[in-house]
Amino acid sequence: MSMEGIGAGCLDGVRVLDLTQFEAGPSCTEALAWLGAEVVKVENPKGGDPGRHAFAMPEGNDSWYFLLFNASKKSVTVNLKEPAGVELVKQMAGAADVMIENFAPGAIERLGLGYDVIKAVNPSLIYAQVKGFGEGSPYENNLAFDMIAQACGGLMSITGEPDQPPVKPGTTVGDTGTGMLLAISILGALYRRKSTNQGERLQLAMQDAMLHYIRVAFASQAATGIAAPRAGAKLLSGTNPPCGIYPCKPGGPNDYVYIYTSRANPLHWQRLLELIGREDLIGNDDYATGAVRAEREDEIDEMIAQWTRQYDKHEAMRLIGGAGIPAGAVLDTQELQDDPDFERRGIMQTMPHPSNGDFKMPGWPVRHDGAPPKLAPAPLLGEHAEDVLGRWLELRPDAVAKLRDDGVI
Amino acid sequence: MSMEGIGAGCLDGVRVLDLTQFEAGPSCTEALAWLGAEVVKVENPKGGDPGRHAFAMPEGNDSWYFLLFNASKKSVTVNLKEPAGVELVKQMAGAADVMIENFAPGAIERLGLGYDVIKAVNPSLIYAQVKGFGEGSPYENNLAFDMIAQACGGLMSITGEPDQPPVKPGTTVGDTGTGMLLAISILGALYRRKSTNQGERLQLAMQDAMLHYIRVAFASQAATGIAAPRAGAKLLSGTNPPCGIYPCKPGGPNDYVYIYTSRANPLHWQRLLELIGREDLIGNDDYATGAVRAEREDEIDEMIAQWTRQYDKHEAMRLIGGAGIPAGAVLDTQELQDDPDFERRGIMQTMPHPSNGDFKMPGWPVRHDGAPPKLAPAPLLGEHAEDVLGRWLELRPDAVAKLRDDGVI
Repeated sequence: MSMEGIGAGCLDGVRVLDLTQFEAGPSCTEALAWLGAEVVKVENPKGGDPGRHAFAMPEGNDSWYFLLFNASKKSVTVNLKEPAGVELVKQMAGAADVMIENFAPGAIERLGLGYDVIKAVNPSLIYAQVKGFGEGSPYENNLAFDMIAQACGGLMSITGEPDQPPVKPGTTVGDTGTGMLLAISILGALYRRKSTNQGERLQLAMQDAMLHYIRVAFASQAATGIAAPRAGAKLLSGTNPPCGIYPCKPGGPNDYVYIYTSRANPLHWQRLLELIGREDLIGNDDYATGAVRAEREDEIDEMIAQWTRQYDKHEAMRLIGGAGIPAGAVLDTQELQDDPDFERRGIMQTMPHPSNGDFKMPGWPVRHDGAPPKLAPAPLLGEHAEDVLGRWLELRPDAVAKLRDDGVI
Repeated sequence: MSMEGIGAGCLDGVRVLDLTQFEAGPSCTEALAWLGAEVVKVENPKGGDPGRHAFAMPEGNDSWYFLLFNASKKSVTVNLKEPAGVELVKQMAGAADVMIENFAPGAIERLGLGYDVIKAVNPSLIYAQVKGFGEGSPYENNLAFDMIAQACGGLMSITGEPDQPPVKPGTTVGDTGTGMLLAISILGALYRRKSTNQGERLQLAMQDAMLHYIRVAFASQAATGIAAPRAGAKLLSGTNPPCGIYPCKPGGPNDYVYIYTSRANPLHWQRLLELIGREDLIGNDDYATGAVRAEREDEIDEMIAQWTRQYDKHEAMRLIGGAGIPAGAVLDTQELQDDPDFERRGIMQTMPHPSNGDFKMPGWPVRHDGAPPKLAPAPLLGEHAEDVLGRWLELRPDAVAKLRDDGVI
């Protein structure tokens, strides 16, 4: 498969040896692939990355989950239970710029591929690791997945209705959010290494990464001295009414429009009053500031809802947003998937996958000089052994064939 | 103020001209600052970044919110309503490697600092922009904040209880999640530029960025053909029971432990049965697979809850996690803030702020060769005018004083 034209090309020539699975690691390396790095997944010959079989999947094919997190990468199978397989990975580490893994705690060391070993092979390698909990934490040996990070990292405590149990944010920020922070540190390390040839070890714990994403809750905690609360659809940092979701026609589970009137811009409230035909309240001291409106929040919410109930959420967003008030329809995944706007702008792209067929999915959303990088298919298991081992290790096809016959790859 | 020792130093020598405010932009530039870049905030002399006054704040001081998102940066005030102020920013752009802004749509162009203008000044500059909606989107002129991005980007539709209205995830991933993706593209562009001196324009819309964080929901949508649902504390991608939060002593609003038994590892379920004293069910076909357990999920949840109710959430996490089952206590911001483990490991650090005093906050959570970068205080408004204008533009102190007298800075 050609990898031409798949990325913005920023990282052309960067080689990433990718021993990650599921999402936290793969989301990180996929971002690097989208920017042009050559990312080579090292996978177990018996099934590969378990993400290939995760969740509901088309019969006999890779899961959609796998395709989403492994676009634009290559795949080489290596049997890490064979000493020759471990040796092969060491040789690949010698030819790589970055190596990354997110196995369970202690596993990479037990495989004989820990940092000390790899550093001796390639001192200028950037060696990156994701774990659930930080080294030195009381939980450093514990397993974690997205939802565990979200529980222990504070996100669940601030998500849900105030008088009800916590809920899990639907976003998998515990995984992908972690992956993005590690990608930033890898890129920083690559930038320095380009001048200095300096290798380094990077470590990120999913629980630790979560604190980065709830800093507004820490601001609330600092201001009030008590744990940040759950606030439903409103803001845990306190509300400047109106702020929240308002019901729209025809009343389905996601037929709401979010309306926010910023404390920093009193015009939002005034514009909203004009839009809903309540100019009579402009200048009325009982409604003039967020502080006084907070005392009559239920009344104000009902006043807004009476207006929004006349429109569907798209019309409501168009009217309110068009009037210069921050507003957004609550869109579901089907509406997002079907909206041609994302495809037209290159935010959603279609992956032509050899076994799964065409799959429209979100790519890297940053435009580089006008367009997001173009995505390429996720690799079939072991698809790139000859290509990668040939170029990275100068192994001839017959040598690769022997590795295959010997059960090493 | 000395900036020595504030970061991992990966980006030493990189100059970032930062015209951002609130969170999406500032979270991006703060990550760059933590990795060693010199980030200079350009702020309105009358109050600066509105984030300085956002939410609850200590009387007369900068808000905690501002401190959290602006650590390790510098500040120069510039009056952009004065032609001489606009000219000064152009000169600074000529001396910078990266320029970034997140004003309302069209504002930077109206100021005379749009990409075409700046590119003519410095063709090798990386010029980065955050907006609410993408260029070419029907909503490209609309305003957005974190909660609007979360509504329009699909996150709210998948967060909350199934039979109730959507809730907003407490994480401000609409802002910080956007900032992280832009930081990755900026770093990719910097990496290429180091060889090529190639400037480029980067654009990211908050709505578009959100799709990146809900890809598991798109996998669900692809598998089922219907919009991904809300699933409370469980997983929208379908459940392999037991999975979810279980109540602990003493029954407070966050006294729960998350327990997950992975489909990919049947041992989790077996270990859990051993832990709770139900070895009798090991090997029982009615409980052996996720699929059959899904038919008796309520029964299984109650069986687990009977056990978890005997413990507080910390004990429960210790016992379950220690037995090799993914588990996490639902921790609130106060518990996280007060836990000495984060401080000991450098994940939380204390900012010695000249007016606000000591403030313990999360820093950059990635360890570089064993330790996260050290954070430095957020800047006072205009604190670094002499320093930055002296070094970047070779302005002598008397020239800076004249700019100040003339109301330019």
